[in-house]
Amino acid sequence: MDHERIAVLAHEKFPDRAKTALGVIRYGDQGVRAVLDRDRAGDRVADHVTDVADAPIVESFADAHAAADGDLDALYIGIAPIGGGFDESWRSDVEAAIEAGCDVVSGLHYFLNEDEELAGLAEEHGVDLVDVRRPGDDLTVASGASAEVDADVVLTVGTDCSVGKMTASLEIVAAARDRGIDAAFVPTGQTGIMIAGWGNPIDRIVSDFTAGAVEEMLVAAGDDHDLLVVEGQGSIVHPAYSAVTCGILHGSMADGLVLCHAADREVVHGYEEFDLPPLGDYVDLYEDLATPVHETEVVAGALNTKDVADEGAAAEAVTEFGDETGVPAADPVRDGADRIVDGIVDAGLGGE
Amino acid sequence: MDHERIAVLAHEKFPDRAKTALGVIRYGDQGVRAVLDRDRAGDRVADHVTDVADAPIVESFADAHAAADGDLDALYIGIAPIGGGFDESWRSDVEAAIEAGCDVVSGLHYFLNEDEELAGLAEEHGVDLVDVRRPGDDLTVASGASAEVDADVVLTVGTDCSVGKMTASLEIVAAARDRGIDAAFVPTGQTGIMIAGWGNPIDRIVSDFTAGAVEEMLVAAGDDHDLLVVEGQGSIVHPAYSAVTCGILHGSMADGLVLCHAADREVVHGYEEFDLPPLGDYVDLYEDLATPVHETEVVAGALNTKDVADEGAAAEAVTEFGDETGVPAADPVRDGADRIVDGIVDAGLGGE
Repeated sequence: MDHERIAVLAHEKFPDRAKTALGVIRYGDQGVRAVLDRDRAGDRVADHVTDVADAPIVESFADAHAAADGDLDALYIGIAPIGGGFDESWRSDVEAAIEAGCDVVSGLHYFLNEDEELAGLAEEHGVDLVDVRRPGDDLTVASGASAEVDADVVLTVGTDCSVGKMTASLEIVAAARDRGIDAAFVPTGQTGIMIAGWGNPIDRIVSDFTAGAVEEMLVAAGDDHDLLVVEGQGSIVHPAYSAVTCGILHGSMADGLVLCHAADREVVHGYEEFDLPPLGDYVDLYEDLATPVHETEVVAGALNTKDVADEGAAAEAVTEFGDETGVPAADPVRDGADRIVDGIVDAGLGGE
Repeated sequence: MDHERIAVLAHEKFPDRAKTALGVIRYGDQGVRAVLDRDRAGDRVADHVTDVADAPIVESFADAHAAADGDLDALYIGIAPIGGGFDESWRSDVEAAIEAGCDVVSGLHYFLNEDEELAGLAEEHGVDLVDVRRPGDDLTVASGASAEVDADVVLTVGTDCSVGKMTASLEIVAAARDRGIDAAFVPTGQTGIMIAGWGNPIDRIVSDFTAGAVEEMLVAAGDDHDLLVVEGQGSIVHPAYSAVTCGILHGSMADGLVLCHAADREVVHGYEEFDLPPLGDYVDLYEDLATPVHETEVVAGALNTKDVADEGAAAEAVTEFGDETGVPAADPVRDGADRIVDGIVDAGLGGE
């Protein structure tokens, strides 16, 4: 996937319920030339989101194509309904994109390549349908090769799902690059893969190959950079997703961990009968669990304060989070990730 | 799968390299009427294995069929080459079984159902090809429902792969039943599934569904028994397989853990550059990791002393293992699992 001029489909959900679209706009190397949202057609991205490159919001792929002077190379599906299905109201846009010679990139559970109509049309027009949730066929068990990569490896680990591990990872990479560190993002989920343009969707891998699929990415990227920041998933004490978390922890053989948390989160998201343990327990658990495979420690913390309205209260929450975890901490969105990179560099990582 | 009269294929590998065949003979409810091993044809099972029901060892399926007076309902593939492929030298036996109206049960990576010749023949003769490594299509993420099952749940957890977790689990069930406890075995691997006749192959599940696939089994079996013994996999600090271990730990929401270890094992099997941590660390790690999801503790230990030649040294190793872990311990094969069941019952589990 190497797209330079793309349109992003986000019908009826931009920006607040369009996590993938926003991620690609904010962090992707692709140039976003238009956003499709029939509810906001006529607005501009800048009317809704600050600090990102602006683009028109349009009604349809035809309008996006026109707005980009007919010069687009892909349509990205930037939203996902609950369950990951394909919304039939998108079909005309996807067909129009294919007919215009564009690839279509999707992180849906529903694989575009298994839709006979779309697959046939794509073949006819010589374009690719890229289902980023479909794992490669060549994955296997880990061998321990992550220990051999040249780059230092940092992994974002969470107290829960949906605390901002992907965003923290991307902000760390950006802040490290600002400091002259040759850093790269290693994606493990569909949004991260769409942003980065490569990667293995770890939650879709055969469970035996979970660590191996992380190792495969690190081996592929490890000699080209000084710092790899691996996007973590879930939490090591999540009642449903801890297997994925554990596989990434051991497969990455991380040299340092960044603990990610959402302010005021006290119970597991969507599993409210499960309390989150104290923050210090997470530090101990992640370190104790990782170390027999590869010695590591929590070197910094990322606190997501998006639900804290008041700037002062957010700053206070970050200070408290840093005190409880005993490492440099920041809200990477509010504050940038510079303090987090301090923690990484202080631990001797990143090749400085 | 509900087979009562079966033949087990173990060509050139019975008994020492035929783990599945031996497991089915020793622990399965199916009656094994013959073992196929062309290298030992003419011998009897009792010539090689003690304490199990005897059966003839024969050259081919035709001979097995004759030895069972034409009354067989399945052929089980009781061996697996490295890589899990199908050995073409078995094809004539499998075909003969299908033509005789027998189901064929396999735990190979190679799916019999995807072999057009065998699948066509099976359809023609109205028999089932059962690929136990192929997960069901209806699995999903865990919901936390394992907490609701009536039965107490015990999980065998390991210091490494291949330390005898399946055997320990089966011996615990046998010893508990001897004591009048209504206990059942919950399989998680292909051999366990072939023995039990049901189950989800957890190492082949999509990683996001690892815990959910365990939960699905516990919910299915939990109201029919007082004690469920879940077969663990791998080790929580295994460089390749810990994701599977962690998913089973949290998905089972076990009330008690039995720590399984192999005497004199000091490094990870097949990953010799990784040392095993001290036994006490395993106890802490498993308990600390499990407890935020469901409070539990290590209640007993199982030590595999098969590589300890001397009876006295084995007994000493078991004593030492019990001292180090602080719980009742036994080698379930040498000693039976009675002391292990003591630990389970002392912890208030099993409904006694």
